[in-house]
Amino acid sequence: MRAEIDEQPCRWRELVRVRSGIDEAAAILSSVQQVVLAGRGTSDHAATYGQYLVQSVLGIPAYLATPSVTTVFGRDTYLPTTAVVVLSQSGQSPDMVATVASARRRGAPTVAITNDPTSPLAVAADVHVPMLAGNEEAVAATKSYTAELLALYLIVAAATGVPARAIEAEVKRVAVAAEELLAAGRPGLAALAHRIRDVDSAVVIGRGYALATAREAALKLTETCSLSASGWSAADAKHGPLAQVRPGTPVFCLLGAEAGRESVSALVPDLLARGARVWTVEADDPAPERIGRTASMGEGVLRVPAGITDQMMPLLEILPFQQLALELAVRRGLDPDRPIGLTKVTLTR
Amino acid sequence: MRAEIDEQPCRWRELVRVRSGIDEAAAILSSVQQVVLAGRGTSDHAATYGQYLVQSVLGIPAYLATPSVTTVFGRDTYLPTTAVVVLSQSGQSPDMVATVASARRRGAPTVAITNDPTSPLAVAADVHVPMLAGNEEAVAATKSYTAELLALYLIVAAATGVPARAIEAEVKRVAVAAEELLAAGRPGLAALAHRIRDVDSAVVIGRGYALATAREAALKLTETCSLSASGWSAADAKHGPLAQVRPGTPVFCLLGAEAGRESVSALVPDLLARGARVWTVEADDPAPERIGRTASMGEGVLRVPAGITDQMMPLLEILPFQQLALELAVRRGLDPDRPIGLTKVTLTR
Repeated sequence: MRAEIDEQPCRWRELVRVRSGIDEAAAILSSVQQVVLAGRGTSDHAATYGQYLVQSVLGIPAYLATPSVTTVFGRDTYLPTTAVVVLSQSGQSPDMVATVASARRRGAPTVAITNDPTSPLAVAADVHVPMLAGNEEAVAATKSYTAELLALYLIVAAATGVPARAIEAEVKRVAVAAEELLAAGRPGLAALAHRIRDVDSAVVIGRGYALATAREAALKLTETCSLSASGWSAADAKHGPLAQVRPGTPVFCLLGAEAGRESVSALVPDLLARGARVWTVEADDPAPERIGRTASMGEGVLRVPAGITDQMMPLLEILPFQQLALELAVRRGLDPDRPIGLTKVTLTR
Repeated sequence: MRAEIDEQPCRWRELVRVRSGIDEAAAILSSVQQVVLAGRGTSDHAATYGQYLVQSVLGIPAYLATPSVTTVFGRDTYLPTTAVVVLSQSGQSPDMVATVASARRRGAPTVAITNDPTSPLAVAADVHVPMLAGNEEAVAATKSYTAELLALYLIVAAATGVPARAIEAEVKRVAVAAEELLAAGRPGLAALAHRIRDVDSAVVIGRGYALATAREAALKLTETCSLSASGWSAADAKHGPLAQVRPGTPVFCLLGAEAGRESVSALVPDLLARGARVWTVEADDPAPERIGRTASMGEGVLRVPAGITDQMMPLLEILPFQQLALELAVRRGLDPDRPIGLTKVTLTR
């Protein structure tokens, strides 16, 4: 898992260099009225990122699929004016293959983003975008997650007509920032893992693009450390989930991107009032007044690089949580590569 | 909260008798290509139910909205061929009002389901369906949740042309079953609450319609009892969330409806292998061979009435969890009517 975390920036450079299937997928997104995304687990979180990206950048609706409408209820409901984008590291899951089949029966164009060009999903879709993450062996997905994010980003950027060279330059810059972050962050995260090594639960809060990060960060902590960790939208927290926060509960507030930051930041006083131990994730921002005054009131700050666009921030903001999940698992005597009772390839029907 | 739980069957009879706005809302659903639903917290779970109901009964796509695309990113993405259905007990939440305003700017017809005909949301939408739940004072929503489910059911049934009289007869039958369930279930649930009074986490698993119940049941346990409770789709569990289950974790598996039952039931051996204390929710089914052989292998069974359609089962399957949340809160020395730090009306922007 450690090696897979560390090789992410290299994988991103490879993906943006090769860009296999990107322009074909962008052509599909440019030809439809809306986009529906599907994935399970980590890939569902990448789909959530894609949902915000498509809507806020392309300005067309984007929603998450409910594959069981096909697999459990036997219904085909996709519209021919909808592009169906399916994400799966293995490309094996029967319910994702069924989603593509359902879309095709209704005449909806399909895109698969997988890590195996010979997988059933890659073969079934109209266009396949290989995520080029290399063989991923740890059960907890890390490099395949950020590869999915980047593949979605490249597709949407191509659909808006940004020149491939400009995108490549930006991704290379983000990759350098990621390498620095991964190298610089480890000692602090190891110390943090030591401090929270005995907790049973954790909460991660984001909004907008960071909602995907919140859910994925919570899943990493859950699957590697057997925590009851939840990722919430800041907008939902006060509708009940806030009650999960008991005295001492570690809560991570994602403030790296600008959109949604105020909404997450506004929750910090409520969290502190409940006795939470709050860590914020903040950019090394040259304009500190843009960060809410409450942001740094907690136990500490996890720094992410400044000068990164909101759309690219999810690639960086997840990295400290991947490292934290690994360090915490080790301190809890667990094998982060092989969580008990989970398997790498999940064949959901 | 206890009074509000108990009055639900009466409220359902009133809603199906009055049916205000139902036919107008059904006409909208019959005139569009797809439906998008929006809600926060409990209302989001009712929206999830609506998503499965519309797709499996009407056969058209239904998705959940992302209100922050409008409120955070300033984008209007609804299509004029989409009906936007917004659910809110209070009808006050600014982000739900903004969702209706965004839909209207794009020419998409709108339906609001609220408990206050004078609320901003009720006034803003093309059609208002009053949920007629009466004044709800407990912070944890109970009767407004099942009223939202029933309102969605009535709208979809009307859109398929089922005669109002037939629907009323069915709802009356379900209301009687609910009264019996509420009266008969309490002693067993009080005993169950006593057994699990010291736990910190819980998990509820469903699929299809029962996914809404799983999430809502988890939210009730969270907000009234400060548990780290999660509601999952059975399809997602093996993609990581299963790791939340530690020895002794209470897990509730929803097997009341037929669609999705097999998928939930298939998880029971994995849960038992992790040391979970498993309770199943099962119908008093005259054909017991339809229940998976593993279903009753856990600590016990919570019975729900037999002979209820899958579409109506969510009205009944949530009731034991409302009662359990109440009984458990009392045994933990908490006031179920006023959870610390939560308010009844939440003004999300």
